[in-house]
Amino acid sequence: MEIKEEIAADLAKIRATKPLLHHITNMVVMNETANATLCLGALPVMAHAREEVEEMVGFAGTLILNIGTLYPELVESMIAAGKKANELNVPVIFDPVGVGATKLRTDSAKKIISEVNISVVRGNAAEVSILGGFEGKIKGVESIGGYSNLINVAKEFANQSGSTIAITGKVDIVSDGRQIAKIYNGDAMLATVTGTGCMATTMIGGFLAVQTDPFMGAVGGLVTFGLAGEKAAAVSGKRPGTFHVALYDSLALLVPEDIMKGAKVETV
Amino acid sequence: MEIKEEIAADLAKIRATKPLLHHITNMVVMNETANATLCLGALPVMAHAREEVEEMVGFAGTLILNIGTLYPELVESMIAAGKKANELNVPVIFDPVGVGATKLRTDSAKKIISEVNISVVRGNAAEVSILGGFEGKIKGVESIGGYSNLINVAKEFANQSGSTIAITGKVDIVSDGRQIAKIYNGDAMLATVTGTGCMATTMIGGFLAVQTDPFMGAVGGLVTFGLAGEKAAAVSGKRPGTFHVALYDSLALLVPEDIMKGAKVETV
Amino acid sequence: MEIKEEIAADLAKIRATKPLLHHITNMVVMNETANATLCLGALPVMAHAREEVEEMVGFAGTLILNIGTLYPELVESMIAAGKKANELNVPVIFDPVGVGATKLRTDSAKKIISEVNISVVRGNAAEVSILGGFEGKIKGVESIGGYSNLINVAKEFANQSGSTIAITGKVDIVSDGRQIAKIYNGDAMLATVTGTGCMATTMIGGFLAVQTDPFMGAVGGLVTFGLAGEKAAAVSGKRPGTFHVALYDSLALLVPEDIMKGAKVETV
Repeated sequence: MEIKEEIAADLAKIRATKPLLHHITNMVVMNETANATLCLGALPVMAHAREEVEEMVGFAGTLILNIGTLYPELVESMIAAGKKANELNVPVIFDPVGVGATKLRTDSAKKIISEVNISVVRGNAAEVSILGGFEGKIKGVESIGGYSNLINVAKEFANQSGSTIAITGKVDIVSDGRQIAKIYNGDAMLATVTGTGCMATTMIGGFLAVQTDPFMGAVGGLVTFGLAGEKAAAVSGKRPGTFHVALYDSLALLVPEDIMKGAKVETV
Repeated sequence: MEIKEEIAADLAKIRATKPLLHHITNMVVMNETANATLCLGALPVMAHAREEVEEMVGFAGTLILNIGTLYPELVESMIAAGKKANELNVPVIFDPVGVGATKLRTDSAKKIISEVNISVVRGNAAEVSILGGFEGKIKGVESIGGYSNLINVAKEFANQSGSTIAITGKVDIVSDGRQIAKIYNGDAMLATVTGTGCMATTMIGGFLAVQTDPFMGAVGGLVTFGLAGEKAAAVSGKRPGTFHVALYDSLALLVPEDIMKGAKVETV
Repeated sequence: MEIKEEIAADLAKIRATKPLLHHITNMVVMNETANATLCLGALPVMAHAREEVEEMVGFAGTLILNIGTLYPELVESMIAAGKKANELNVPVIFDPVGVGATKLRTDSAKKIISEVNISVVRGNAAEVSILGGFEGKIKGVESIGGYSNLINVAKEFANQSGSTIAITGKVDIVSDGRQIAKIYNGDAMLATVTGTGCMATTMIGGFLAVQTDPFMGAVGGLVTFGLAGEKAAAVSGKRPGTFHVALYDSLALLVPEDIMKGAKVETV
């Protein structure tokens, strides 16, 4: 099956099966990623208490960990939920928001990837580079570095870690250490709304709930979200508030045929 | 006075008196329920710290408790605020989000209803059924069961608990153990946006701030919210982002005459 | 340089330099103020953990403290971050949400202003009056008092505290104890959306990142936000959901020429 066809089929499958995406995520985007989950066709649950995360993840199609507004107890909940997810074969997706900006973020992210088997890490160029031990520059939670060879970063980090690595930016790069994909979908307007990176991670979470290959799940999530972003930008005229609303609309209205027509993926 | 007239009068009263609705609620919908409160014509306050909840509830027209993203300390704050509200005759509305999904949720919800006198419990079919000791199936925080006799569930649970029970779904059911109302307002688009259940609870909170009969308050809140949902759906064309924006618009623009014309309530 | 010209120049400077605005803020508006920051042209970071705030503030153009959903540990983080900001000459902006409503809020706000050098305090009439030791009436987090002489409140409190004081309302008042500005920009629709006060504080934070005079920064932020509110109201027709979206659009599309044409500031 060609990549596009597999993504289109996975999107249909998400909508038919409505997997539950368990998020342990940040307070800035919690509402946004819940709505993005619904628009994709899955069901969101946000549950963070140490007392319930292991039980909640038992119902989940995937577990999504995001350290955007972390604190030590939340990291403990993430690790406990992640270990349980590993035990139950629930794929875990990790978004290392702002790693490198503070010791707490760097140490917590490293602890999470050392204690939990992660199917996909999704971050911007700086986050992924820093987490993988490459160079990277970060300003708060924004990547500001100039990165010469992100394909190598993704591939090497994937090989080191055993996770699929997804780096989002102007062009998205995904590698599982063997395969490499470059995704040209998306629009600059996505950077005008907070939490679109976190939503991209959620999309990967949706695809991994119906797709056993993490590489394909990451590619599927990013193509789908990028396409929704393009369609939203086309009707928004550089207005971020309007774009934000249109992004949910586009995502919800996206059909498998749109993937067949609009996916811009290249495997290297 | 006919039901519709009473709801219309209560809506006018909310707008004239602007009661303060004290929410101790979840992080996913906090912004949404605050905005829904403003659109209804009331004033929101979100205050959760154990150190201040008893003092804050002293200014409130109603207290709204919602366990969507609970943790043990928050449950303690809820119980302390609830007891104080009982002492001050401030009505308490309870939204048992996701009860049944985890032991933490089930135990916390049972603790809250055993220690606090609740005027109205509002939940989906699964949440209310499980909390009332009936059967129910839940997936994360979504009800997935097939429920044969929700009227009986509402009525019996109301009689057991002394609270008015409101079950929202395709048709909303409200009972105080004696009276039963079926509400046909609403639209399927409401399920495409996260937090609309929580907003429905907030609406009940708004009505109970001006209405002494919990049954009438619950009916008023659900009719009003359902009508706003219908009006929003009429201009949104299956687009969840657009619907979400239109829902706030419709709610703010709703006038008592709309209730007189559009309320679809049946008492059994 | 005339005031308008200076504001216009500062807006251009924010967009050219994209300062990082470190927020330690409330859970209700975290997403809103992050998006408002992006629309202004700056970069947001929300980081609250005691373990990371001092490190994070090192990257920041300004630090914004907001006690809307405070709890004791968060106040500790605010004070630690504030002291570090003082050490690094990073301006601190303080939004004393709901001060006066509870002892926790009043004590925490007073502790913050006594331990941290604040460049600008931004609040509504009640909050500022109460914090400054004048009379004020508050209902939850809404100002309900009738205030005869807010100019005196602002001026005296500024002289007492050494901070610039900004009181927002129908007319915004700013004083550093010596200069006084009255700002007539804004629209009543701003009160229909939760968090617009917090966004105003964020705007001041953006301007202070490029402007050394706190008085000018406060005036610049409030003029800019008021203008965005006016433009949004002009296309929203009393619909709060539509206004909310248009507010982000207007802010992002605002250019320095709009300031030159539309600023309504009067110095007394």
